[in-house]
Amino acid sequence: MTTPHNPTPVRAWGVTAFAQPLESLTITRRELRADDISIDIEYAGICHSDIHTATGDWGEREYPLVPGHEIIGRVSAVGDAVTKHRVGDRVGVGCFVNSCGHCDPCRAGEHSYCDTGAVLTYGSEDRYADGEYTQGGYSQAIVVKEDFVVRVPESLDPAAATPLLCAGITTYSPLKHHGAGPGKKVGIIGLGGIGHVAVKIAVAMGAEVVVFSHSTAKREDALKFGATEHVSTADPAFAETWGGQFDLILNTVSVNLDTATYLSLLRFDGALVALGLPNEPMEVPTRMLTSKRRTLTGSLVGGIPETQEMLDFCAEHNITAEIELIDATAINEAYERTINSDVRYRFVIDAATF
Amino acid sequence: MTTPHNPTPVRAWGVTAFAQPLESLTITRRELRADDISIDIEYAGICHSDIHTATGDWGEREYPLVPGHEIIGRVSAVGDAVTKHRVGDRVGVGCFVNSCGHCDPCRAGEHSYCDTGAVLTYGSEDRYADGEYTQGGYSQAIVVKEDFVVRVPESLDPAAATPLLCAGITTYSPLKHHGAGPGKKVGIIGLGGIGHVAVKIAVAMGAEVVVFSHSTAKREDALKFGATEHVSTADPAFAETWGGQFDLILNTVSVNLDTATYLSLLRFDGALVALGLPNEPMEVPTRMLTSKRRTLTGSLVGGIPETQEMLDFCAEHNITAEIELIDATAINEAYERTINSDVRYRFVIDAATF
Repeated sequence: MTTPHNPTPVRAWGVTAFAQPLESLTITRRELRADDISIDIEYAGICHSDIHTATGDWGEREYPLVPGHEIIGRVSAVGDAVTKHRVGDRVGVGCFVNSCGHCDPCRAGEHSYCDTGAVLTYGSEDRYADGEYTQGGYSQAIVVKEDFVVRVPESLDPAAATPLLCAGITTYSPLKHHGAGPGKKVGIIGLGGIGHVAVKIAVAMGAEVVVFSHSTAKREDALKFGATEHVSTADPAFAETWGGQFDLILNTVSVNLDTATYLSLLRFDGALVALGLPNEPMEVPTRMLTSKRRTLTGSLVGGIPETQEMLDFCAEHNITAEIELIDATAINEAYERTINSDVRYRFVIDAATF
Repeated sequence: MTTPHNPTPVRAWGVTAFAQPLESLTITRRELRADDISIDIEYAGICHSDIHTATGDWGEREYPLVPGHEIIGRVSAVGDAVTKHRVGDRVGVGCFVNSCGHCDPCRAGEHSYCDTGAVLTYGSEDRYADGEYTQGGYSQAIVVKEDFVVRVPESLDPAAATPLLCAGITTYSPLKHHGAGPGKKVGIIGLGGIGHVAVKIAVAMGAEVVVFSHSTAKREDALKFGATEHVSTADPAFAETWGGQFDLILNTVSVNLDTATYLSLLRFDGALVALGLPNEPMEVPTRMLTSKRRTLTGSLVGGIPETQEMLDFCAEHNITAEIELIDATAINEAYERTINSDVRYRFVIDAATF
C-alpha cells in the first residue's frame, strides 16, 4: 500500500557554493517510485569525508550540496512494490543509495565495489535512475530505493548507532574479510571516529586488539573500549617491540605513515588494510611483502547485506559509537573541531534541529 | 639400513673469493646423520639468485661458495632413521635444507617462511644443526636431511624438471594460494626462467593466461606455452585495454615496474604478487587498493609438502622447464648470457661434468 508522497520540500543544511560554510536551506525529495522508501531522519552523523567534500578539499561539486551518509530514521512512506520495510520501522542509510546491480561485485552484494561505480548518498549523479544529484542526510527526510535501506535494531540507541552506517561497516567489513576473531591479534592505527568503532568491533569478534596512536591522550579510552594495549608511535622503538606479531592491522588514518614499519609488525600471512586515503602514494619495499607473504590491501565500505549483518552484530554485542550530539547550527563549529581532532569520537546531528 | 658414508670430498664449481668467476674446486660433504640422505646429483639448474649471490651483487659471503638450489639426482645412501626415501630413488632438493621446525609457518609446512629463517641450500649457516655453511648443487653429490628432500616422479625428464625445484614451486605456490583455476584470468609479467614455468602451470590449472612482456620477441613461445595473449608493455595504452580484468597477476621480474599500472589491471578482489626483489620500493597509490579491494602481496618459494604437490602436478600435466643443458665449464658464460636475457629459458648443468 502506498502512502501518498508527492515531491516534498524538506529543510536541510548544506553548502550553496564552493568553499562556503554550511547553511540552512531547502531541498526537494522526489516523489516515491514503486521501490522507494521515504524516511523521516532522526539523526545524521558527521564523517571526515563530509568535511573534505563540503569544504572543497576534494574539488568543486554541484551545488547545493547536502552532506551526510550516516543516517538513521523511521520509515514514513513506502512505494507500491516495497517489501523489505514498513512504515514506522527504524532504518538506516549509509554511504551509497544505488549501484548498477548487474556486475560481479553487485551480484555478490558488494555494492560499494560496483564496477561502474555506486551512487553515493550525496553529491553523486544517480545515473542508474533519474540522473539527479543525490542529497545527503543533513536533512529532515530522504527518499531511498528500498534495496539500499537497512533495518536498525530497536535495542540500539539510535543517535549513537548512526555512525555505524559508515564507521561501523568500514571497519566490520575488513575485520570480517580478513578473519579477525579468537586467536587473532589485530592492530588499529588511529583512535578517531573510525578507529574507536574498529576497536569495539574487533574486541567483540574475539580478537586481541592493540591500538597504535601518535599520542597517549586516548590511552585510557582505548583500554575502556577493550584494547589490551595502547602503543604510542612517538617512540620509533615501538616497531621492534611489536614486530612480526599481528595477523591484521587496519590503518584508519589518512595521513602518510611509514608503510614499511607497519608491514614489519605483521606475522606470516598478515594483512595491512588501508581505510583512509592519504594523498601521497605508499612506499613499499618488496621484501617486506615477500618475506612473510604479507598483504597490503585496502577496503572501502561494505555492501548492504554486510551492513545489515554489522548492525545485527552490534546490537548483539551492544556496540555503538561514542558521540557528541549537536544541533544543526553547530555543524560548522563541529567541522572545525573534527579537523582539529577535538571530538570524542563522532559528532551526530539531531535532525529535529534542521 | 645405513650405507656407510664417511665425510666425502666431492668435485664442485664455485667461487673462492668475492667477485671472482666460478671455478672447479673440491668440497667435503658431511658424514650421514641418522636422518640424512646422500644424493648423487644428476642435474643442477642456474637461477638468477645464484648469479646475484656468486657475483657479489648481494654482498660478500663466506668462501668458497658453491651455488645451486635446483637439484635433481638419485639417493646413494641413507641414514639409520630415514623412512621417506630409499637408495636409488630419484629425488630433488630446492631452495632450503633446514628450518626451525617449531614456528607456526614450519608447522604449517611453509618452511620458506620460517620465523627464524630457513637454512638456504647454499651460503647459509645451518644454525639448527652443525652451524656449517651450506654448499649448493653445482657439485657431484649433496647430503640433506630427509625432510627437505622431495620425490621426483620418474615420468619427468630429470634435466628439464630440475628448474621446477625453484621456478616451479615459486610460481605454483602463489598460483594455488590465490586460487588460479577455471574461470580465473591470470597475468604473468615477464617470460623468463620463472615466467615461462608460471605460464605452463597456470594454464594446466585451468586459468586463462595473459603474458605481459616489454618486447614481442617471445610472443610465439608464450602462445605455445598456452597463454591466450601476449601483451607488449612497450605501448602504455596496454593498461587501458586490459584494465580491471585480472584476478591474479604474478610479477616475475626484478626491475622496478609501475606498480599502479599493474594494480589497475586487477578486478575486484584481485591480487598482484611480487616474486622478484627490485631494489627500489614500490610506489602504491592507496586508492588503487581501496577502490576494488585489490591486494598487493609477495611470495617466496613454498614449503616441502607443496613442493612435492607441485612435482606431482607437473608430472600429471607433463610440465617441465625449457632448458639449455650445459657442461660445468660453461657456467661463467651461462651467467653472462642469463644476465643478458639470452637463454630460453633456463640453463641446467650436467652434473657428470663437475
